Amino acid sequence: MDYKILDKNNIIEYIHSIEEVKNYFNADDLYIDEIGDGNLNYVFIIKSIPNPKKALILKQAVPYLRCVGEEYPLSRERMTFEIRALEQFSKITSNYIPKLYDVNEDMSCVIMQYLGEHIIMRQGMINKTLYPNFAEHISTFLAQNLFKTSSLYLNSTEKRELIDKFNSNTELCKLTEDFVFTFAFMEHETNDEYSINHNLAKELFEDSNFKKAVLGLKYKFMTQSDALLHGDLHTGSIMLNQEETFIIDPEFAFVGPFGFDIGALIGNLIMSYTSHVALNTQEEYRIWILKAIEEIFIKFEEKFLHLWNEQEESALIVNGFIHNYDLLEYKKEFMLNIFQDALGYAACKMARRMFGIAGVADIRDIKDEKIRDYAIKMTLDIAKVLVKDHKNITKVETVLHIIKEKTK
Amino acid sequence: MDYKILDKNNIIEYIHSIEEVKNYFNADDLYIDEIGDGNLNYVFIIKSIPNPKKALILKQAVPYLRCVGEEYPLSRERMTFEIRALEQFSKITSNYIPKLYDVNEDMSCVIMQYLGEHIIMRQGMINKTLYPNFAEHISTFLAQNLFKTSSLYLNSTEKRELIDKFNSNTELCKLTEDFVFTFAFMEHETNDEYSINHNLAKELFEDSNFKKAVLGLKYKFMTQSDALLHGDLHTGSIMLNQEETFIIDPEFAFVGPFGFDIGALIGNLIMSYTSHVALNTQEEYRIWILKAIEEIFIKFEEKFLHLWNEQEESALIVNGFIHNYDLLEYKKEFMLNIFQDALGYAACKMARRMFGIAGVADIRDIKDEKIRDYAIKMTLDIAKVLVKDHKNITKVETVLHIIKEKTK
Repeated sequence: MDYKILDKNNIIEYIHSIEEVKNYFNADDLYIDEIGDGNLNYVFIIKSIPNPKKALILKQAVPYLRCVGEEYPLSRERMTFEIRALEQFSKITSNYIPKLYDVNEDMSCVIMQYLGEHIIMRQGMINKTLYPNFAEHISTFLAQNLFKTSSLYLNSTEKRELIDKFNSNTELCKLTEDFVFTFAFMEHETNDEYSINHNLAKELFEDSNFKKAVLGLKYKFMTQSDALLHGDLHTGSIMLNQEETFIIDPEFAFVGPFGFDIGALIGNLIMSYTSHVALNTQEEYRIWILKAIEEIFIKFEEKFLHLWNEQEESALIVNGFIHNYDLLEYKKEFMLNIFQDALGYAACKMARRMFGIAGVADIRDIKDEKIRDYAIKMTLDIAKVLVKDHKNITKVETVLHIIKEKTK
Repeated sequence: MDYKILDKNNIIEYIHSIEEVKNYFNADDLYIDEIGDGNLNYVFIIKSIPNPKKALILKQAVPYLRCVGEEYPLSRERMTFEIRALEQFSKITSNYIPKLYDVNEDMSCVIMQYLGEHIIMRQGMINKTLYPNFAEHISTFLAQNLFKTSSLYLNSTEKRELIDKFNSNTELCKLTEDFVFTFAFMEHETNDEYSINHNLAKELFEDSNFKKAVLGLKYKFMTQSDALLHGDLHTGSIMLNQEETFIIDPEFAFVGPFGFDIGALIGNLIMSYTSHVALNTQEEYRIWILKAIEEIFIKFEEKFLHLWNEQEESALIVNGFIHNYDLLEYKKEFMLNIFQDALGYAACKMARRMFGIAGVADIRDIKDEKIRDYAIKMTLDIAKVLVKDHKNITKVETVLHIIKEKTK
């Protein structure tokens, strides 16, 4: 199918050519509206007029940055990787991915379940909503997908085929290399005056040990092919309510280091925590955030190890190669490495959100400058320790202790 | 061009279709002979009858294992990767790669310079030949190719394109995963009775710490995409004389960990050393081997760092990100990691050659069983220390000290 840009006028014709979507709506009259999706893509909601609860989302990438316009070209190939990742994650953990009704790489378009009763997690956390099942859900999503796309589960051929499918996602990997690991920590044209002149920014930009450690984490991001990553798993890429959790927007997906997605998530939870400390929100909510962080680490490790222990052979392990007792020790060290990398990546993700092009609403939207600066300072204090010391931290309790110490 | 198997009868017709080869021989009458190339491929020499010094090599992969026959299928795609690697290495270090006259992926065929005045290095070392320029040459080959195919030199797009070109070399990577890191260290059907029942093999197969460390090195081999590797850089993949050094047979090429090629080479030099100790060869030769090992490590690091220091920007480093003093410290640690990984890989390569399917002539061809066992024991003693302790060794002198201690 030749690519064409969809709009309110030609969407009906497009979706009538897709059996599964046609069947979903039967012969209902449809209402179509464009809804925002941040900066990159066009997103439409397609609703049945007689039954507005019947609705789907259509998301299409255009060959430019949607929020700026055609003068800012950006390859629409990003949707190819989003589609592939959605399909891959659906295969492994369909509960946590919106149901896919149609994907079309030629059209850079996906049609999927409308999440009408869910909210973006960042907004939910700003609203101080508790999500009692979140740690359970996200640890399953992470453990299942990271394990089952790694060389601990796949054989060598399957692993290389997976790498093939995502290796060309250069443009978005490069965005992470630049904006998560580099530009946010230096004087750079993409940072505004406010960021560059902030005392805490100046301090950060001059922190040698921080920067050396960031280089190491960046290098690992660029060269370590552990498993398929979402690639941008912050609280804005999660839609949820009390019962259900969905992961969206995996256009940054590629085969990278195990710790990166967990780190992104934990980093964003910590930023929510520091924002609530600065805003002096009721303690109950802050306690829940810390508990969620703890549970995610612990449940992730349990579930990942459980899958590994059930797995007899893989690209890495051949039956009979090593005694089980020794293998368990090897696994323990392996999990420690993932944990430590996750801390390093969490810290990069936190620090880069304080200054630079992409703030988080949790902190940047705090109107009172003193309170905002207080949140920034706590976040950076935690991030610096985690970046510099991540290879010496061996326990989740230590992480919680650091967070509490730096937010006292 | 459709693939067809070449033989003495149709080669003339084939090479007459290639301008560069036709020009090389002018209208000379040609003499064609098949020469061995171990197990995998067909290799022919094409000689001018009036001027026998004018000669080229034609090497073609067939879709089966040459030494066994059509009943043992093996994808001829391996030649695709050999061709791509030869081309890539030629671009960077043409001095050390046979001159390419024609490459043809469809035909799984390469026509290249005939190295009539060079000998396979393993044979040269068994003959106790000194190669005074070898360390200088091979350190240049390693430093240039590893650096210039890494994220320290390429930008992100170029690096991912490089990975794309070699990512599907699954079959041969799998051979390394199985035969270098796994089957040689366990009771496995590919090991003969002699190997399995050897006391030293039994001891090795039960060495828990050795095996845990090997798993770590294997995992890194499978997942770390530092730079383009030759993939099988033992002394049988090098042809040389006193003045010139050529690298051949890179069909195992893929983007893997920096330390792997250096390790393969050093491991093979150490095996040559232990064989000469066991055989009580004149001391001069043994001293030269140790000196070569030392020089390779030192010159490699010097040359790699020199290239890095000249390089302003790359996928990893953005100008202005970090102070030069801090960057130098980062580089020092980076080089230490390469060195340590090289020691680990050297040791795997050594240990796996003692038992298992692929011995080295240096040791396996020693007729006297006592002398051979002595060489095996020394080799394993060194390999075990290097595998288990590679992350604690920080200096080349320590390596030399270990080798001397274990061969006293």
